[in-house]
Amino acid sequence: MKLPTPLSLQQVASLVGAEIIGDPQAKVHGINEIHMVEPGDLTFVDHPKYYNKALNSGATFVLINARVDRPEGKHLLFSSDPFRDYVFLARYFRPFEKATKFISDTAEIGEGTIIQPGAFIGHHVKIGKNCVIHANVSIYDHVQIGDEVIIHSGAVLGADAYYFQKRPEGYRKLEPCGNVIIGNRVEIGACCCIDRGVSGNTIISDGTKMDNQSQVGHDTYIGKNCLIGAQTAIAGVTRIEDDVLIWARVVVNKDIVIGKGAVILATSGVDKSLKGGKTYFGSPVDDVRKKWREQALLRRLPELFSRLDKE
Amino acid sequence: MKLPTPLSLQQVASLVGAEIIGDPQAKVHGINEIHMVEPGDLTFVDHPKYYNKALNSGATFVLINARVDRPEGKHLLFSSDPFRDYVFLARYFRPFEKATKFISDTAEIGEGTIIQPGAFIGHHVKIGKNCVIHANVSIYDHVQIGDEVIIHSGAVLGADAYYFQKRPEGYRKLEPCGNVIIGNRVEIGACCCIDRGVSGNTIISDGTKMDNQSQVGHDTYIGKNCLIGAQTAIAGVTRIEDDVLIWARVVVNKDIVIGKGAVILATSGVDKSLKGGKTYFGSPVDDVRKKWREQALLRRLPELFSRLDKE
Amino acid sequence: MKLPTPLSLQQVASLVGAEIIGDPQAKVHGINEIHMVEPGDLTFVDHPKYYNKALNSGATFVLINARVDRPEGKHLLFSSDPFRDYVFLARYFRPFEKATKFISDTAEIGEGTIIQPGAFIGHHVKIGKNCVIHANVSIYDHVQIGDEVIIHSGAVLGADAYYFQKRPEGYRKLEPCGNVIIGNRVEIGACCCIDRGVSGNTIISDGTKMDNQSQVGHDTYIGKNCLIGAQTAIAGVTRIEDDVLIWARVVVNKDIVIGKGAVILATSGVDKSLKGGKTYFGSPVDDVRKKWREQALLRRLPELFSRLDKE
Repeated sequence: MKLPTPLSLQQVASLVGAEIIGDPQAKVHGINEIHMVEPGDLTFVDHPKYYNKALNSGATFVLINARVDRPEGKHLLFSSDPFRDYVFLARYFRPFEKATKFISDTAEIGEGTIIQPGAFIGHHVKIGKNCVIHANVSIYDHVQIGDEVIIHSGAVLGADAYYFQKRPEGYRKLEPCGNVIIGNRVEIGACCCIDRGVSGNTIISDGTKMDNQSQVGHDTYIGKNCLIGAQTAIAGVTRIEDDVLIWARVVVNKDIVIGKGAVILATSGVDKSLKGGKTYFGSPVDDVRKKWREQALLRRLPELFSRLDKE
Repeated sequence: MKLPTPLSLQQVASLVGAEIIGDPQAKVHGINEIHMVEPGDLTFVDHPKYYNKALNSGATFVLINARVDRPEGKHLLFSSDPFRDYVFLARYFRPFEKATKFISDTAEIGEGTIIQPGAFIGHHVKIGKNCVIHANVSIYDHVQIGDEVIIHSGAVLGADAYYFQKRPEGYRKLEPCGNVIIGNRVEIGACCCIDRGVSGNTIISDGTKMDNQSQVGHDTYIGKNCLIGAQTAIAGVTRIEDDVLIWARVVVNKDIVIGKGAVILATSGVDKSLKGGKTYFGSPVDDVRKKWREQALLRRLPELFSRLDKE
Repeated sequence: MKLPTPLSLQQVASLVGAEIIGDPQAKVHGINEIHMVEPGDLTFVDHPKYYNKALNSGATFVLINARVDRPEGKHLLFSSDPFRDYVFLARYFRPFEKATKFISDTAEIGEGTIIQPGAFIGHHVKIGKNCVIHANVSIYDHVQIGDEVIIHSGAVLGADAYYFQKRPEGYRKLEPCGNVIIGNRVEIGACCCIDRGVSGNTIISDGTKMDNQSQVGHDTYIGKNCLIGAQTAIAGVTRIEDDVLIWARVVVNKDIVIGKGAVILATSGVDKSLKGGKTYFGSPVDDVRKKWREQALLRRLPELFSRLDKE
């Protein structure tokens, strides 16, 4: 998330009471997680395992719970609990605002767009032209939607990322400040759920069509002109390139990449990155011919065992 | 879809600017897809692969992009883009009408039927007697529902068929003009999605009970007194006969038939037509005993390999 | 379900016209199913296969369709159709009340709780302090929710149990009179469905977090601080102990127990009870290392068959 206006490191530090190791006048432009930060952003890290990753990331500012050496060009904020402070900043810059009507007065809605009864349009939502938002759709605050988009009933855009940190007293939530961005000519099926990014954006690009009851996790990117079959679950922080075809009931793991034009057959489980331009099947997914061969041999197991039991 | 009143071929042709090869005074009674047409209907075809199927279908009128010979008793409409023209006709005869209230004034609702807050009832919907439509259900225009039906919250009836045509510039939508028809004493679980037919009807027959989060694709027929378990996905254009039992999380492919009284165990993937009266399991589905045997042998693989590796 | 105030067996018998075999003045405190009854409760049984189970259950009162011997300390109600009479009692003590507004006047809502537009809060619902109930959530009558609970859009709490009895003329519904009880600091994802108990309670305990589009069947108990991944389906009458981790797209059968701290990897199918503290995978589920070994051997099947075909 970019800040509405850049703040000095001094100002950010004072919000959370953190100690500055660096230049107090340096300007913080945004806050984001390790895998999404850009120069000018602040990220956080609270586990030694990830110290190096955070310190070598694109972030200019690192909120950290150790007095480590400061890499050149970076500035540190020392805190006993970076997770807590990061959540504070997320909520500070992106507070939850109660709604009092179905369509917020702060929503911008394009010409020719139809919003059916019971659809909820949160604060600061932007919807383009000639869209149809069907009955009982829920669009959380700040979500951005392009032109000629159709969203079917029961779909939910912008619900919180599913992201918790285990603590002795229970799970602590990483309050999200990210967003959902939907391109032009996208169609989203009934009861689909697209979560907002934790601090970055969940993106569905132009021309992609999702069938009913599919879900997309936080910070995932889906390219242009993809088809996503019914009841597909795509985890967070995954990248699906243009023209990918996913049939029904596929599950896709987090932190992977599916290359341009890949085809994933129904009921597959994608647990690793896949090259584009090929067809895949099975759980765990593999080349479709290999999987079909495996299934054919599976059916020969009785023959195999009866032969061996005779020897 | 049947037209509100039959039109001459001349009138239909002039709506889309198509060339008549046949009798301009012949009466068009409806429009429908190849697999659902009846005499008096118009269908469309735009790929040589399906020309014969369309020309030999039940359709009396064929909208086609080639100047083929006219079969006896049939009339053709020649067009450079039958898909575009068919969509135009679908939208012309079944235009999308914006709703301004939760329950349309044109909806007919039977005696004793309870409609809870937030339920959306579109234009021209018919609901029978003594039903309960729970909160936040969405029922799109024209859907028909019988008597003593219960529809749980979040369910969506009549959303658009998931049907697109690939084009160089992206996917083009086959705008649906079909419908959803629900019989008597049906119960539909929370967050279920039942799509409307493309041009025909999606039908759920008397006495069938669907558990939560299941979905039924366009133009599918489900018979009487079926049980459909939670999170089941049934694709489009499939036929499920009476008394079929489907346990949870089953996926059923399109264009298949499941015979009367078949039982499909949980998590199965049905990729082909199945005879009635038997029990099936697995993905791809097979006779349950065969599948259980296969699974038992799978567990013996380590033994098998260690024996072979010793030889 | 406990009765609002205890009734004499005489009073209960007269409601359904059943014959008393026992003390007419004995006090009935509640009605419940065999697996959930406590002393003072009435249960029902209508199949000889379950007579012994019912007569030896914790129930003090048994509604039964045979003139069996009365066990010591128990009282019987003889009826030709115990199912019908039990349903009558359930509906009598827990009648369905039509709602006329989004938030019932009889709902109790704690301080600091935010209810977004389109959320339905039924009669006699209790919601604790500092909760957020997002847009278009549906909460059926009598549901109880703790403090600091977040429920995302499209979620449905308290829909009817999926429980039917087959009859020659079709399925007969066991009208539920149970409830849903949600602990403190629970988070429920978008479009999740949690069914009410048939006569007991479906319980989600403190600190548990459910991801989108998951479902929980009737009378299931989920312990504290569990994580439940997206699109997980948990059947009815199952017990999941504290600190269980369930990844995405898992299916859990009914009538089983998952022990404290068990971890179930994504896409698994849990068909039997599992000991706590271990990691499981696969469908049917097994020890994760065993399953991974099985999958590795599966990939060696082509090698195996080509070797055998040469011999």
